[in-house]
Amino acid sequence: MSDTAAPAESHPAKTSRTEDDAPYAATGRTTPTRSKERASYDPAVVHPILDGAYLCHLGFVRDGAPVVLPTLYARVGRRLYIHGSTGSRPLRMANTTDPGLPVCLTVTHVDGLVLARSAFHHSINYRSVVAHGVAYTVTDPDERRIALDAIVDQVVAGRSQDSRPANEKELAATAVIRLDLDEVSAKLRTGGPNDDPDDLALPFWSGVVPVARTYGAPVPSEDLDPSIPVPEYLAAR
Amino acid sequence: MSDTAAPAESHPAKTSRTEDDAPYAATGRTTPTRSKERASYDPAVVHPILDGAYLCHLGFVRDGAPVVLPTLYARVGRRLYIHGSTGSRPLRMANTTDPGLPVCLTVTHVDGLVLARSAFHHSINYRSVVAHGVAYTVTDPDERRIALDAIVDQVVAGRSQDSRPANEKELAATAVIRLDLDEVSAKLRTGGPNDDPDDLALPFWSGVVPVARTYGAPVPSEDLDPSIPVPEYLAAR
Repeated sequence: MSDTAAPAESHPAKTSRTEDDAPYAATGRTTPTRSKERASYDPAVVHPILDGAYLCHLGFVRDGAPVVLPTLYARVGRRLYIHGSTGSRPLRMANTTDPGLPVCLTVTHVDGLVLARSAFHHSINYRSVVAHGVAYTVTDPDERRIALDAIVDQVVAGRSQDSRPANEKELAATAVIRLDLDEVSAKLRTGGPNDDPDDLALPFWSGVVPVARTYGAPVPSEDLDPSIPVPEYLAAR
Repeated sequence: MSDTAAPAESHPAKTSRTEDDAPYAATGRTTPTRSKERASYDPAVVHPILDGAYLCHLGFVRDGAPVVLPTLYARVGRRLYIHGSTGSRPLRMANTTDPGLPVCLTVTHVDGLVLARSAFHHSINYRSVVAHGVAYTVTDPDERRIALDAIVDQVVAGRSQDSRPANEKELAATAVIRLDLDEVSAKLRTGGPNDDPDDLALPFWSGVVPVARTYGAPVPSEDLDPSIPVPEYLAAR
């Protein structure tokens, strides 16, 4: 474990740096090779994409080969947190690799299916964020609690304050890693198909099928005391 | 380019090997370190998860670091195909790396938010597939056409036959890579929260919020001939 994993001077308060609207710096690996006009480094674009999801795909390298696993995450200011069992591979690797585990964390929303007259111009409308960097194990107890609350609240805002906090045994079984947002970019596609002018008279339907993630009515556990109502923070979904 | 990229004897017919129900072999990297009971190597589990999506997260290694990009894909039998601009990084790397580009291709469906009485037991219900292997550039023209049709049909079944096929110029600008399904596994979580017995009397709501991907009414392009109706294959969504 590197001593830099959780520097004492940088415990994030919930609101720390969220006011910071300086754009992220473009680097070689956050500059797309094509469709450059779809890329953004603006926190006002990047952060809402991250805040609107809770599942990311985390990439890391194991024995020289890539591994991509779906996992929950949370954003706190310009930091992302991931948690998991202390036995899980990436969390264990982040803890035993000096100076940390190189990762790529990607979040994608699908907003529409784009059907062009030509097969070639078919596409999807999407919003994605790709963050590169080194993930460090978080050891500071305060930062760990902030991260664990944030991961619960990322899925259902307000839920961390309406559930039993982790006890010592659970905390001991849980690893938390942090990726500082630094080398990060968003990429978006919106709008209708980009049909070639020569294709406009073809007899094929053209347009967009909107896609959304929707939430059904909450289903209580069978053993739930029926006097406990569905919480307001769930009804809001 | 390796000569093995598109061996002439193995052009896939649309139905080739889909009847093959032999389980995939478990390997070190497809055996989870925990929750082993959630893993499956059965094509009857793996294939429907792949067939129910069209966006994957593709991981590869560039300059020693992981990269994870969202991209469309298609399954044809025990093969996955990805396409893209010949200039895009992973497709270019697959073409210039001998014997191909090591990748990890991951597909995830979110089915529910699982709210336990304890923060620790919060989870999500999901179905995911993780496929490891080496991706090869497909050079055989017939296999390329099969793959490109399949990628369009993966998004909207039947659409490849109701749009203009790629012309020579478009084909020249498009790279196709193939990942043979071999080292692949599914992982699933279903059901309600696994609350600790000691927590059952706590006054917190517990249960599942169902999650689904939904499709809105198709929105025609502004320049679409109004006499062209919404196709049946779209109405079915």
